[in-house]
Amino acid sequence: MHHDGSALHVPDQNPRLGSNVDVWLRTGPSVRSVHVRSVEDGEPRFTAASAERRGAELWWRASVLVRNPVTRYRFIVDGDWYTVLGRFAHDVPDDTDFRLVAHPGPAPWTREAIVYQIFPDRFARSATAPATPDWAVRREWDDPVVGRGPDASRQFYGGDLDGIARRLDHIQDLGADTVYLTPFFPARSNHRYDAVAFDRVDPLLGGDRALRRLADALHTRGMRLVGDLTTNHTGVEHPWFDQPDLYYMSADGGYESWLGVPSLPKLNWHSARLRERFVTDPDSIVRRWLRYLDGWRIDVANMTGRRDGDDLTHEVSRLIAQSVRAARPDALLVAEHAHGAGPDLDADGWQGTMNYAGFLRPLWTWLRADDLDLPDFLGVPGGVPARDGHAMVATMRAMMATMSWRSWIHSWNLLGSHDTARIRTVVGDLGRMEVAVGLLATLPGVPMMFAGDEFGLTGSFGEQSRTPMPWRTSIQTLPWYSRLLSLRRKHPALRGGGLRFAHVSADAVAFWRETHDERLLILARRAPGAPLPMPISEATNLYGGAELRGELPGDGPTVQIWSCPS
Amino acid sequence: MHHDGSALHVPDQNPRLGSNVDVWLRTGPSVRSVHVRSVEDGEPRFTAASAERRGAELWWRASVLVRNPVTRYRFIVDGDWYTVLGRFAHDVPDDTDFRLVAHPGPAPWTREAIVYQIFPDRFARSATAPATPDWAVRREWDDPVVGRGPDASRQFYGGDLDGIARRLDHIQDLGADTVYLTPFFPARSNHRYDAVAFDRVDPLLGGDRALRRLADALHTRGMRLVGDLTTNHTGVEHPWFDQPDLYYMSADGGYESWLGVPSLPKLNWHSARLRERFVTDPDSIVRRWLRYLDGWRIDVANMTGRRDGDDLTHEVSRLIAQSVRAARPDALLVAEHAHGAGPDLDADGWQGTMNYAGFLRPLWTWLRADDLDLPDFLGVPGGVPARDGHAMVATMRAMMATMSWRSWIHSWNLLGSHDTARIRTVVGDLGRMEVAVGLLATLPGVPMMFAGDEFGLTGSFGEQSRTPMPWRTSIQTLPWYSRLLSLRRKHPALRGGGLRFAHVSADAVAFWRETHDERLLILARRAPGAPLPMPISEATNLYGGAELRGELPGDGPTVQIWSCPS
Repeated sequence: MHHDGSALHVPDQNPRLGSNVDVWLRTGPSVRSVHVRSVEDGEPRFTAASAERRGAELWWRASVLVRNPVTRYRFIVDGDWYTVLGRFAHDVPDDTDFRLVAHPGPAPWTREAIVYQIFPDRFARSATAPATPDWAVRREWDDPVVGRGPDASRQFYGGDLDGIARRLDHIQDLGADTVYLTPFFPARSNHRYDAVAFDRVDPLLGGDRALRRLADALHTRGMRLVGDLTTNHTGVEHPWFDQPDLYYMSADGGYESWLGVPSLPKLNWHSARLRERFVTDPDSIVRRWLRYLDGWRIDVANMTGRRDGDDLTHEVSRLIAQSVRAARPDALLVAEHAHGAGPDLDADGWQGTMNYAGFLRPLWTWLRADDLDLPDFLGVPGGVPARDGHAMVATMRAMMATMSWRSWIHSWNLLGSHDTARIRTVVGDLGRMEVAVGLLATLPGVPMMFAGDEFGLTGSFGEQSRTPMPWRTSIQTLPWYSRLLSLRRKHPALRGGGLRFAHVSADAVAFWRETHDERLLILARRAPGAPLPMPISEATNLYGGAELRGELPGDGPTVQIWSCPS
Repeated sequence: MHHDGSALHVPDQNPRLGSNVDVWLRTGPSVRSVHVRSVEDGEPRFTAASAERRGAELWWRASVLVRNPVTRYRFIVDGDWYTVLGRFAHDVPDDTDFRLVAHPGPAPWTREAIVYQIFPDRFARSATAPATPDWAVRREWDDPVVGRGPDASRQFYGGDLDGIARRLDHIQDLGADTVYLTPFFPARSNHRYDAVAFDRVDPLLGGDRALRRLADALHTRGMRLVGDLTTNHTGVEHPWFDQPDLYYMSADGGYESWLGVPSLPKLNWHSARLRERFVTDPDSIVRRWLRYLDGWRIDVANMTGRRDGDDLTHEVSRLIAQSVRAARPDALLVAEHAHGAGPDLDADGWQGTMNYAGFLRPLWTWLRADDLDLPDFLGVPGGVPARDGHAMVATMRAMMATMSWRSWIHSWNLLGSHDTARIRTVVGDLGRMEVAVGLLATLPGVPMMFAGDEFGLTGSFGEQSRTPMPWRTSIQTLPWYSRLLSLRRKHPALRGGGLRFAHVSADAVAFWRETHDERLLILARRAPGAPLPMPISEATNLYGGAELRGELPGDGPTVQIWSCPS
């Protein structure tokens, strides 16, 4: 039995408010009765579905009225409920229902993208080496990164935007088409999340003109550029900090700051002036940079607008989304949220999230090295637990159930970022790293890779993982990225197809990605094991080289992709 | 392993915003490490818990900062998560976390109450028989009720408020202390959910003075009175309907109505005038009747304020709650919601819900007669499925996880209402009915009984269940209500104690209700079976008569209550 929100099961992917949308549920031939329950204006409504036979399956069709901007629906199958989490013989609350979303939909490119994340100080230097700023400690490109202590944010390698522009062949060869830059505004740290201005590009990076050159170079290649916006806080030396209405200030001169870090005072989104300057003015921060950028990644989106009794997050996200659309109707808008963005999505604001919770963490628990020693996971004590395939898939499904299919496929899947350990360190084994890249390329969601992962760089936590790119190294660029990501570009089913798990066990996970025209079967194995029965008579291997002769092969670690007749 | 939001585990039951609250988790002796994760301003924070030994258990204490009005928390136990739904070896989203709620808390009586629901037309007539109104068809008290067709809402039995006032001994003898009246405003139906005025009591019920007499009579006994308010719609003949800004009107004279029923036009809560008249004026509908009433049950709360792109439900619920508090700080405010009120609770509005989803329906699925033939359940096709004890408990827990413990214990548990089949019809067997009443009296939540259930009245759906009270019948009032509800009144653990399941199987469910001073063990069995091991050495039977000699007895159907040394 299967349903998901993909076009195979919900042909109208951008329903209008008030329209009727067909939804299809696939079942085995013995199912006798299917209804759809949708919730209209808070009240459940039930509609009978009718079946047609397709091969060995019944395909049940029902019509759902998109009564509300987010209309939830589920199925009743022979008396049981069926939601994103599967079939239940007891009642479950509405939380995990499927969702039809009538808010304006993101532009198609935002879900077709393959994103390459760059931490500008560490990517590449152009010929014009900048002077070392007063806050910084100069480092040579090959110097090891200092992970802890005050130097972690002061060590300065001098990467810049023109340096990036010179390396676009490398990025494009990997299969990526969208560059996401961590902040480029002037700041007093190498990470630049402590902006001291939003109205100009850091001269250390080459200034506004370098950003324009980079944007032009990317756009000439049909590529895109995404910026990083700190909506939760600024640097304490930002000139705005003189204006107490923009921040959470107390009468005694104290102020609220991000996790208590004094250099990062928290913005107060009650402020009308802040809203105007940052978002709604025709020349606001959000808007003006979309002359060059194709979208924004929103930093600390989970905390933006939240403080004590204030919860303005949805309001601010809508405001930003409206402003972004006004400046650039096809722009991308993705939110950082590390533990569960679901409740903040589908609210006409963020289009998706950086999927730490629903992709990175479950994948890490499954593929982590046996001897991995990480002190914590983004603050979670106990590091990254070792879990089996069941647990990985259960986590992915649990997180998937907190948002619409649309938000899920617009979220960014990632194996690591500037805030985490490097995937190479997490998995240890190179074979498992290929499996990780395989899942990055084949599961629903926009793949985002952190620059340097393709060189097998290592690192146990964010600051330590911000290694300068080893351009002079003789190590071959890992070919998995280019091969697997090019498969994703070539096969629509890997981007917009449904997701149906075919096998889940401790060491192996197999799933279908399907459209009307294409059926791909993916096998990911973290370890060798017994072959698994899979009654497929005809299949063409697209990756991995194994044949499918009535069973999924037992070699491992491996990732295999087959195309099957549809 | 156990935690719930009761005072045994969260001593501060009404935390203030910004305070630190101790939370206790009980585990077996082999647990090595416990942390609490709370979410502050959208960001997780982790705090180590410390253990003390109590008997065979470890009690782990951690402090949680009540940073936000609703602060969610969960435990990490040796690397696994523990939420309201139990222990998980995979990641789960925040939805089912425990919650600390810093909104103003309901008055203590509202959770200590035992509610008796009266449908005024069918309860009792006073000496002053009213004339038959123009919309009505006169019926004699012993005439059978017409369940379907236009007469269902027109048949008029002539019960009135003075009739109720004469029967308070009966209600009090049953153990109830709070009378909840379905609407008493003038209308053009016997159910009066189509109000034509809110400024006076229907003269057919005795008018304003009769309401005052009833309220006085109840208050003299230390009892309470709760009214029923239709915030979603009025009757089409309400004089407000001349004022199009109060309703959802279209340019062509059409209008939105409740489930398309033309006689029930839907109120538009965007209207400032509606908000003033209904809620915020000093003499608003909500406020003025609280001179007599002790609270409101809100009709169709799930739809109130929702329509297409409008979702004003939380805003309206807060507005009503503020107004109710202003008029009467200790008032009760409970919302009708039949499929899952969780997302509408803990929002500083409704204090709880009529717990159809988390109590009535799961209980019905477990105790229903084998040959039960109901066409549907509040619209759900397929009637009431037959399910085992696991499914009942799973449903209860799933629904419990959608709200705070506080909202759960302020919600009304019910075995039936004027909108459903009668419990006697659902269970068939009288022994199972005693089990149902036993669970009503012993599970967390405010017991609400529908008048007439104590006479074993039957009915397969709402309209048919509105049988006039058979006062002249020679059938004894069923003694279970008075005995079981008086146990509830006597034992604080049954009202405010924690809930910990001790045994769940197909035919038997046993659970602890515990405070610091009291430990009660409840066994509910729907059928006989093998005795179940239960290593309790000392227990006093409070109900049912069975002894507890190292095992839960196998007789059934039965409900047993034991008091064990704490």
